[in-house]
Amino acid sequence: MKNSGADELAKKMKVKLDKDNFPEWYSEIVELSGLVDKRYPIKGMNVWLPYGWELMRNIDEVIRREMRKTSHKEVCFPLLIPQSEFQKEADHIKGFSDEVYWVTHGGSTPLDIPLLLRPTSETAMYPMFSLWVRSHSDLPLKIFQIVNVFRYETKQTRPFIRMREIHFFEAHTCHRDFEEAEKQIQEDLEIMDSVAKELCLPYLKLVRPEWDKFAGAFYSVGIDTLMPSGRTLQIASIHQYKDNFARAYRIMYEDESGEHRYAHQTTYGMSERLIGAVVGMHGDNRGIVLPPAVAPIQVIVVPIPKKGMKEVVEEEALKVKEELAGAGMRVEIDLRDLRPGAKFYDWELKGVPLRLEIGTRDIEEEVVTAVKRNTFEKRKIPIKELLKSVKELLDEVQSELYSAAENFLKEHIFTVRNLKDEAEAYRGIEGVIRVNWCGDMKCAEELEVSLDKSFLGFPPEEKPDGPCAVCGGKAAEVVYLSKSY
Amino acid sequence: MKNSGADELAKKMKVKLDKDNFPEWYSEIVELSGLVDKRYPIKGMNVWLPYGWELMRNIDEVIRREMRKTSHKEVCFPLLIPQSEFQKEADHIKGFSDEVYWVTHGGSTPLDIPLLLRPTSETAMYPMFSLWVRSHSDLPLKIFQIVNVFRYETKQTRPFIRMREIHFFEAHTCHRDFEEAEKQIQEDLEIMDSVAKELCLPYLKLVRPEWDKFAGAFYSVGIDTLMPSGRTLQIASIHQYKDNFARAYRIMYEDESGEHRYAHQTTYGMSERLIGAVVGMHGDNRGIVLPPAVAPIQVIVVPIPKKGMKEVVEEEALKVKEELAGAGMRVEIDLRDLRPGAKFYDWELKGVPLRLEIGTRDIEEEVVTAVKRNTFEKRKIPIKELLKSVKELLDEVQSELYSAAENFLKEHIFTVRNLKDEAEAYRGIEGVIRVNWCGDMKCAEELEVSLDKSFLGFPPEEKPDGPCAVCGGKAAEVVYLSKSY
Repeated sequence: MKNSGADELAKKMKVKLDKDNFPEWYSEIVELSGLVDKRYPIKGMNVWLPYGWELMRNIDEVIRREMRKTSHKEVCFPLLIPQSEFQKEADHIKGFSDEVYWVTHGGSTPLDIPLLLRPTSETAMYPMFSLWVRSHSDLPLKIFQIVNVFRYETKQTRPFIRMREIHFFEAHTCHRDFEEAEKQIQEDLEIMDSVAKELCLPYLKLVRPEWDKFAGAFYSVGIDTLMPSGRTLQIASIHQYKDNFARAYRIMYEDESGEHRYAHQTTYGMSERLIGAVVGMHGDNRGIVLPPAVAPIQVIVVPIPKKGMKEVVEEEALKVKEELAGAGMRVEIDLRDLRPGAKFYDWELKGVPLRLEIGTRDIEEEVVTAVKRNTFEKRKIPIKELLKSVKELLDEVQSELYSAAENFLKEHIFTVRNLKDEAEAYRGIEGVIRVNWCGDMKCAEELEVSLDKSFLGFPPEEKPDGPCAVCGGKAAEVVYLSKSY
Repeated sequence: MKNSGADELAKKMKVKLDKDNFPEWYSEIVELSGLVDKRYPIKGMNVWLPYGWELMRNIDEVIRREMRKTSHKEVCFPLLIPQSEFQKEADHIKGFSDEVYWVTHGGSTPLDIPLLLRPTSETAMYPMFSLWVRSHSDLPLKIFQIVNVFRYETKQTRPFIRMREIHFFEAHTCHRDFEEAEKQIQEDLEIMDSVAKELCLPYLKLVRPEWDKFAGAFYSVGIDTLMPSGRTLQIASIHQYKDNFARAYRIMYEDESGEHRYAHQTTYGMSERLIGAVVGMHGDNRGIVLPPAVAPIQVIVVPIPKKGMKEVVEEEALKVKEELAGAGMRVEIDLRDLRPGAKFYDWELKGVPLRLEIGTRDIEEEVVTAVKRNTFEKRKIPIKELLKSVKELLDEVQSELYSAAENFLKEHIFTVRNLKDEAEAYRGIEGVIRVNWCGDMKCAEELEVSLDKSFLGFPPEEKPDGPCAVCGGKAAEVVYLSKSY
C-alpha cells in the first residue's frame, strides 16, 4: 500500500530490531512490516493494512482448500446472538459471560432482548442445526465460516495474539454418535497438519487438562507452537462436545429404526494467531520472514543498473517479472527511484522470501542473482532455468523455515525426571517441560509452582516412561508444562 | 449443502411460485433456492447457506478484480467505532444516529465510551486517513473493504434488500482536489458498468436530489435497477464528499509549494442488494436464474439412463463433467437416486444456467442435450465440440439475461409531458416516470403527489426536451420518479 506509512515509520522510529527482546521486537515488527496499524482508537482492535490483509486472506484460502477437500461447506451466520439463545448451555455461559460485548440499543431505543457479539458461534448456529438436522440422512453435517469474533479482553492485548476483534475460522460438525465424532477429530488433526506445513509451523498436539478445556466441551485438543521467548502460543483448538450442546439445543435425528437420538458434535477453531506464530517463529532482526506458500509477494525483482544502463536493465528485469507472473507466481518489481540498499531493506522488513537482483553484469552472464530471505544465501541462476530455479528456491525456503522451527521446538523441550533435584535448574528455563505425573492434584500443583509453569496438556501418543516426577509413584500421564500467551 | 433443507422445504410448502405476485414470490424464492435461511431468531438477520454464500463470494470476486485493475488496495477496519469519532461530522451523525446499534457493556462492565457497530465506515477510517495522508505524494489514496455493516432498520425487512446485517462493499478515496475526485467518480461509474454486465443488470444512473443525498456528501449518484413489480431498487451509490469529511477529520496534505490543503474524498458502496436485484430481475415461476459469470454451479450434468444402462451412462456423464471441470468451469453432476424430472426441478429452482442431459440415445448419437435455464431452449451438442459449445451457450444465457432485463427497463420508462392531462393514466402505472421539471419545489411536490411516486434523481446526460410538465415554465432538469424499495 502506497500509504501504509510503514517505511516512513521505520525511519522515524529509528528502531533497532532485537529479537532477543521478544515482546518489544514483536510489537514493533508487526507495524514496521506493514501488516497492521495499531493506532486505531480502540484498544485491541487494529486496522488490517493491505499487506497484512492479503497475508491473512492467503491463509484463509489454504484453510478453505482443506475444507473443500474434506466436504465442509462454507456458510455465514449473523454476528449478533440473542441473550436467550446464548444462555442455553450452562458451562458455555459461565466460560464466556465475562468477555462478551453487549448491544443494548438500536438508535436511542432499548432493545427488547440484549444481543451479544459472537465470541464464537455455537449459540448462533445450534438453534439452526436443530432445524436442519432431522434424519440420519442429514448427517454428517459439516460446515465452517471465516468471520470476525469479539472478546472483551481485560488482559494486555497484542497484535494477532490477544485481540478484542479476532479474525476467526470455525468448523462445526454433527454426527450420529461419539465414534463418528471421534473420526472427525482425526480428520481435523490431518487438516491441522496440512495447514501447519504451509505456514512452516511445527507444533505440539496436547489434550488440555479438565480445568482448561473449552466451555461446554467433553474434551479439548490444543495445538501449540513455541515462540522464541520460550512461551507457547495456542494456534488452534479442536473440541469433542459429545451431545452436550445437542441436549441444550435439541439437535436430534431419527435413526434407521425410527428412534430419536441426540447428535454428537465437534468444532475446530483457528484464528489470526496463525500470523502471530509465523511472525514470531520466522522473523529476525531485519524483519518478518514469510513462508512462500502464503506470502503476498513471493518474489521481488530489483534491477540494479549502472549509469546509463537503466533502461536496458529495467527492461530485462521486467521480462523476468513477467515470466514468473505468467507462471502464476506472486511477483513484483521495484522500480522506485531509490538506492538498491534501501529497496533491500524494505523487502527484507516485509519478509519477501526471495529477492532477484538483476545488474548489468548479470545480463552479460545471462543470469540473475537470487537471495533467500531466511539465510541470505546468494545464488546465480541461469536465466534459461529461471522458472525451475525460482520454484526450487522457494521450496527450499519453505522447507528450511519448517526445519529451523522444528529444531527450535525440539531443542526447547526438556524432560524433568525428579522435581526436587531439578526444579531449580529448570525453573527459569525458556521452553517446555515434559514430566511423568501420577494424576494427583497435589503433585500437579507442586509441579506448577516449582517450575513456574502451567499444565499445557497431555500428548495423546506418549506413554509415561518413568515414575511421577514429584512423588515417585506410578505415573498415569505424560504432562507438558509451559508459560503461554 | 446436503442439509440446507431447501428441497425438503419446497415439498413441504407445496408452493406455487407466481412472479406476478412479486413480494410473495421473492420472499419464497430466496429460501426455496437455498440462498439463505430466514429462520434465525433475529429479524433482518439471515443465515447465508452454502449456495447463497458462494454466490455472494463470486460477486465479491468480480468486484475485487475491478478494484485490482484500478489500483485500489484491500484493507479491513474494525467493526466498532467510538462514539467520539462518530460525532465529528454533523450531517453524518444526523443521517445515521437513529439506526446504529450501540455496544454499551463488556461482560457486566459498562464501557467508558459507548461503541457503535459500523453502519458504514467513514468514521472508522477517516481518523486513520488523517494519519496516513501527509504529503501530496500520499495521494491518491484508494482503498476498499468487503465487510458486514449494521443498521437498526425499523421498516419491514426483506432478504438482500433491506437487512439489519448487510454484506457490504465500500471503497474510499482521497485526492488533491475536487477535479481529481471527479475523475475518481468517472472511474467508479466504469467499474459499475463492468460489475453490472457480469450480473446482467441494466440500470439507471441518477444524481440524487439534495434532500436524498448521503449524509455528509456534496452530491450522490444512485444506481437503480427496476424490479418486476415496477419499483426501483438502488444497488450502488457513489458519493462526492468534497472536503466535508476532510475538514471534520483533519485529513490534510502538504502540496508541492509547502501549503497545507484538505483532501477531497469520494466513496463507492455496493451490497448484497446485488443478489436481490439478480433474483428479482431474472427469476421466474420455476425458480431463480443466475448469470453464468457468478453462478456457483454453471453447468449441471444429469445422466438419464434406461434400465440396465446406468453404469455406462453415468460413466459418460462423468467424463463430460471432468472435461468441463478441467477447463475451469464450475460444473457438478447429479448422481442422486431420483427421477430425472425431480432433478430438473431442483436445479431449475436453484437457477443453474445450463443443464446437460445425457441419455443412452445421446451416447449413440455422440451428443449431449443442453437446456438453457432462461429460455428452456434445447439443443443437441456434438460431444466433440463439448467445450466450445458449452462456452457459447453460457455466453448466450449471459447476454440474453442482460437483453431481457434491458428491454424490460426500457419498456417501463414513461415520459409524461403534461401532468394535468396525464396524471390519472400514469398514477397507478408500474415503472419509472420521466418528466421535464422547472426546478420549483411546488412543482416537485405536485409531481410526487399526482403520480404517487418519489423523485429518484436526475440523469446527468439528459437535457430537458420540453417545458415543465407541471407549470409549463422553462425546464431546468429531467427528473425520474418511481416507487422504490
